[in-house]
Amino acid sequence: MSSWMLAEALEAPAAVARFLAADAGAWAGFGARLRAADPLAVVTVARGSSDHAASYLAYLLTARLGRPVASLPMSLVTLRHAPLRVQGLAAFAVSQSGQSPDVVSSLGALRRAGALTAALVNDTAAPLARAAEWSFGLHAGPERSIAATKSFVASLTAAARLVGTWQDDAGFLARLHALPEQLERAGHLDWGNGVPPLAVAARAIVVSRGLGLAVAAEAALKLKEICGLHAEAFSAAELQHGPIALVGPAEPVLVLAPNGPALGDLVRLADVLRNHGGTVLLAAPEEIRARDLTLVATGEPDLDSLTAVQSFYPFVAALAEARGCDPDAPPALSKVTRTI
Amino acid sequence: MSSWMLAEALEAPAAVARFLAADAGAWAGFGARLRAADPLAVVTVARGSSDHAASYLAYLLTARLGRPVASLPMSLVTLRHAPLRVQGLAAFAVSQSGQSPDVVSSLGALRRAGALTAALVNDTAAPLARAAEWSFGLHAGPERSIAATKSFVASLTAAARLVGTWQDDAGFLARLHALPEQLERAGHLDWGNGVPPLAVAARAIVVSRGLGLAVAAEAALKLKEICGLHAEAFSAAELQHGPIALVGPAEPVLVLAPNGPALGDLVRLADVLRNHGGTVLLAAPEEIRARDLTLVATGEPDLDSLTAVQSFYPFVAALAEARGCDPDAPPALSKVTRTI
Repeated sequence: MSSWMLAEALEAPAAVARFLAADAGAWAGFGARLRAADPLAVVTVARGSSDHAASYLAYLLTARLGRPVASLPMSLVTLRHAPLRVQGLAAFAVSQSGQSPDVVSSLGALRRAGALTAALVNDTAAPLARAAEWSFGLHAGPERSIAATKSFVASLTAAARLVGTWQDDAGFLARLHALPEQLERAGHLDWGNGVPPLAVAARAIVVSRGLGLAVAAEAALKLKEICGLHAEAFSAAELQHGPIALVGPAEPVLVLAPNGPALGDLVRLADVLRNHGGTVLLAAPEEIRARDLTLVATGEPDLDSLTAVQSFYPFVAALAEARGCDPDAPPALSKVTRTI
Repeated sequence: MSSWMLAEALEAPAAVARFLAADAGAWAGFGARLRAADPLAVVTVARGSSDHAASYLAYLLTARLGRPVASLPMSLVTLRHAPLRVQGLAAFAVSQSGQSPDVVSSLGALRRAGALTAALVNDTAAPLARAAEWSFGLHAGPERSIAATKSFVASLTAAARLVGTWQDDAGFLARLHALPEQLERAGHLDWGNGVPPLAVAARAIVVSRGLGLAVAAEAALKLKEICGLHAEAFSAAELQHGPIALVGPAEPVLVLAPNGPALGDLVRLADVLRNHGGTVLLAAPEEIRARDLTLVATGEPDLDSLTAVQSFYPFVAALAEARGCDPDAPPALSKVTRTI
């Protein structure tokens, strides 16, 4: 049951504490620069788990600052050489390795086209850090596991710090400092009752909405990579525009319902899906009686996705074991993925 | 083997011809307005199949005009009441029914916040048409099938017309007029050899890249809705950042490789996946010898996604029959989905 993946996931609270203690001056300067430049819209550049952190960043930016955020399809730059028009916009890349050629060259192209660029990257010696005007380390330390865990939680924290710094919201930034302790608690919750329903499934659905959707997407990716379980994430609304046709005994549904304006709808959806014959696991804060799995409330709903993913890690490691998979050796993958 | 879904899919060429013949003056006026307003970025608002048309629109806009395009997470408006900052931006909604409250209220909120708004909508009497400053009918006619087909092809055509009109690219717009004949040809190709590998699968992957990715997402949704087959779409690059771990005999892969800058990479990927033990169906233009399924080349790679989806429709109808599913009665779905 021991794996690098689980050991590194349990290092996330310490990683986040390191990240929050570092680079205060650079972050403050970046916030001032963002407020002065006042970008009208934002472009994100990322792949895999980092793209899920970028998705959390996108939701948080629109929720708190109202700016639309576009996820750049990198092939439009690397293969199509699109005539980028991004003056007056900001572009943020997220990456653990900072190595993938498509991410590096796309951020470079956005910078040359006039965007205000920044990179959130675990390896600050990587090419991505040099491609960006502003570069911030995630301070998660090295990861041996192919599946990113502590670096993912650090990248979510970095996204929250970016938005709070741009807003100059001292209250929100102060709340970030309680995260390490809350993550510690979240990493030791017992989600063991979620293992049996997913132990024999070949496919599954993960549902959330709003800020939780980024973590639902990350959970689905981990279930694919580590457990060989084809799980796909949907927003509660998109589920009803087609994929709900799949829900039934062979297709369990994990509903991630952290605090926030979608909580009530997600709890009701879990009920509807159960009545529809689905096997449902509802992860929700402890005041929700119908929950199967408990989520740690941080007191700031915008941060509750972070504790949710931290509780998911020991669960997915246990699920991998139950399915006979080695979380440290997913098939056909390597730590640094180089795509163009 | 007869279904409303298939009958309506085969009406797509006529629907597209009607659409292209209609509203010339309004479209020209809209093009002039877009060039005068020169929006720095674009926001799309759509769900389900229409969101895949919005994704095609997004890729085409960035590819040809360089503008970043953000897909709005509607819950940020409907549940979170985010303080939208979209002056100087454009917002485009795509919808068959024009009824879903989230789409209507999100486009209305974007308009009130100062965006230049337009709706591409099949039912021009619907609330969405009134919510937008500019509204364009898709002219696909009524659809009885729950699964959108001809209205989806019309919405892709509308997306191409929007971009060509904004660019004032007479050559590109002229090429649109060859579409009905090419769609007619595409709708009568024989993809029958693709049915057996997918007839018994419980899960599958659809891969493409660039403009083809929107059609891959739509194909995956149709496989879910109509065939009860959990298919998920990935870009060729994202596949390598995790989901490739799933590829094997139990998880067939449909590779959609229309003409365009990603064609070579997609053909090579099909080969890699085959060597990896995967069951692969490669859909590619006829000059690609390794293809399993043929795609119609329109002479304009930016339009080849449209003929690709048209060839997919009779195939997915045949696959549904082989799997014992009724394409006109997918479980748990209705024609007009009202989400908030």
